[in-house]
Amino acid sequence: MPISRDSRTNNMAKMKGRVLITGIAGFGGSYLAELMLEKGYRVFGLLAPGEKYDNINHIKNDLALDRFDITRAEKVSAYTKKVKPKYLFHLAAMASVGQSFSKERLTYDINFTGSLNVFEASTSQISRIRRLIVISSADCFGVFSPKNKLLKEDQPLAPISPYGISKAAMEYLAGYYHRQYRLPVVIARSFNHTGPRQSDTFVVPSFCKQIATIEKGRRKPIITVGNLDVKRDLSDVRDIVRGYYNMAVRGKPGEVYHLSSGKSVAIKTVLDRLLGMSPATIKVTRDKSRFRKADIPILCGDNSRAEKELGWVPKYKLSETLKDTLDFWRNTVRQ
Amino acid sequence: MPISRDSRTNNMAKMKGRVLITGIAGFGGSYLAELMLEKGYRVFGLLAPGEKYDNINHIKNDLALDRFDITRAEKVSAYTKKVKPKYLFHLAAMASVGQSFSKERLTYDINFTGSLNVFEASTSQISRIRRLIVISSADCFGVFSPKNKLLKEDQPLAPISPYGISKAAMEYLAGYYHRQYRLPVVIARSFNHTGPRQSDTFVVPSFCKQIATIEKGRRKPIITVGNLDVKRDLSDVRDIVRGYYNMAVRGKPGEVYHLSSGKSVAIKTVLDRLLGMSPATIKVTRDKSRFRKADIPILCGDNSRAEKELGWVPKYKLSETLKDTLDFWRNTVRQ
Repeated sequence: MPISRDSRTNNMAKMKGRVLITGIAGFGGSYLAELMLEKGYRVFGLLAPGEKYDNINHIKNDLALDRFDITRAEKVSAYTKKVKPKYLFHLAAMASVGQSFSKERLTYDINFTGSLNVFEASTSQISRIRRLIVISSADCFGVFSPKNKLLKEDQPLAPISPYGISKAAMEYLAGYYHRQYRLPVVIARSFNHTGPRQSDTFVVPSFCKQIATIEKGRRKPIITVGNLDVKRDLSDVRDIVRGYYNMAVRGKPGEVYHLSSGKSVAIKTVLDRLLGMSPATIKVTRDKSRFRKADIPILCGDNSRAEKELGWVPKYKLSETLKDTLDFWRNTVRQ
Repeated sequence: MPISRDSRTNNMAKMKGRVLITGIAGFGGSYLAELMLEKGYRVFGLLAPGEKYDNINHIKNDLALDRFDITRAEKVSAYTKKVKPKYLFHLAAMASVGQSFSKERLTYDINFTGSLNVFEASTSQISRIRRLIVISSADCFGVFSPKNKLLKEDQPLAPISPYGISKAAMEYLAGYYHRQYRLPVVIARSFNHTGPRQSDTFVVPSFCKQIATIEKGRRKPIITVGNLDVKRDLSDVRDIVRGYYNMAVRGKPGEVYHLSSGKSVAIKTVLDRLLGMSPATIKVTRDKSRFRKADIPILCGDNSRAEKELGWVPKYKLSETLKDTLDFWRNTVRQ
């Protein structure tokens, strides 16, 4: 359903070129779409069957959208051939580590087979595609030691969740397509990131939604949490998608880049900061069912390669990210 | 098509228990079937649709065989439930590194999805299954440095072929099913192995078949070879399947064992030894089309864990293996 835009915008987009974002209505996808429109690109995007437009409703008229199942190779191939993107950002994924434990097969189908389809389709358009950016994850590392070190890009992969397994296998595919076919693929190994619009199945939005609901008086002043002891390297989604853009423009084909804050924060600290932003007095209770069977105790990524080679440095402070996310939920939760 | 056996054998098999071998008509599968019959087990086996019986023709009447596509989860599940194996040896695979470059999707479907199906099916029978043995490969390592070191089990995986990628991902699955569901899975990381019956798409049988054909006067005395410079850790298939058996009986759930000779031999040396066993005078020509785009220069596996924990030591000398393989092809190639 491509939608026409005014001629000035169209001319600029013609000059800058066409980009394709799979998973465009997802959390990261929606921010990347905004950024690429701002930069003047013509933005094409793929949604999953049944996926909602909520995250991209405000920019929907500026996007050319399609919708099909990414696990269908022939569809991905035909679509890529039709769009002819200069940059292809492959963000479509089953993105929740937690949910991947109960949705194993779906995770492998979408994250591995879906990516294989994108690699094949891109290879058939190899002369046109300047960069293919694929999104991997710090979850590929699994549990490692020593536990508190800063993870560099060459840290061996040892995934322990279905999500991590699917992303590690996708990274191997990326390396293979680069070596075998010279596909200009660049791997973004994103560490945890959050912000407005992230699903409340993730930890920060889960806290924010509960706090906002309590503030509206629609819930008892008790917040239910999972494992607060784990430490995560937490970035703002708006910084992360800027990293994807930098990788498209300056990333070295075949390379992996860590997009991370370079710092590690305990989930307990995140919760305390959010509670400190609320006028409500809120009790905290731990819910064991929210604990994962296998959890990585600490994650902290060295982002010096991204800084050096991509000129990428995170701009958002954690406090801003948390404040914006809490405000988003304050606006979202009904009175 | 289960086939009845005489009552003495049946009673012994009843005592020892039932084993299931996927890929039973494959190269390793056929030797493992022989070994398990010798040990007194009732042997059930799965073949792929269209797969030939050649390797198991001589023992076919002693086996209970079935045939279906291992990528079909519901079939694998029903079959495992029916057979109720004490030991499940999962050997079904697209087993050629070389062919995996042109059969990527088939490789991932059979080696990854097929294994996922076996893990799921075994987990649903977890109280009955004493061990699930899955077959991985030294090809998971890819290219590593320093190039001449002895590879231990904890060497990071960095596969470069579709075959290696599929097996590395399968290893991650195995680890996951062990941690998550306590599935008693043991990983055999087999290094290269050869012997009679191996397909001539592999290097040693390819040499042997050509030499045997030359000896019969059915081919000019010129042997065509690929890259002779790579070094491989080459075992006898009969030692390797004994390793699988030892892993079933003594292997530690969740553990990986290297089954290897512990030595590395140049493919050129293998060829020279085979040529030395032939009375024919044979010229060697290199065929660049037989070179792989990505080849691992050297492989050598440390087998000390298997020796220590499984009491496994290779018995066959390389010269015996090569002689037996050459003799097999001398008997196979028609006059």
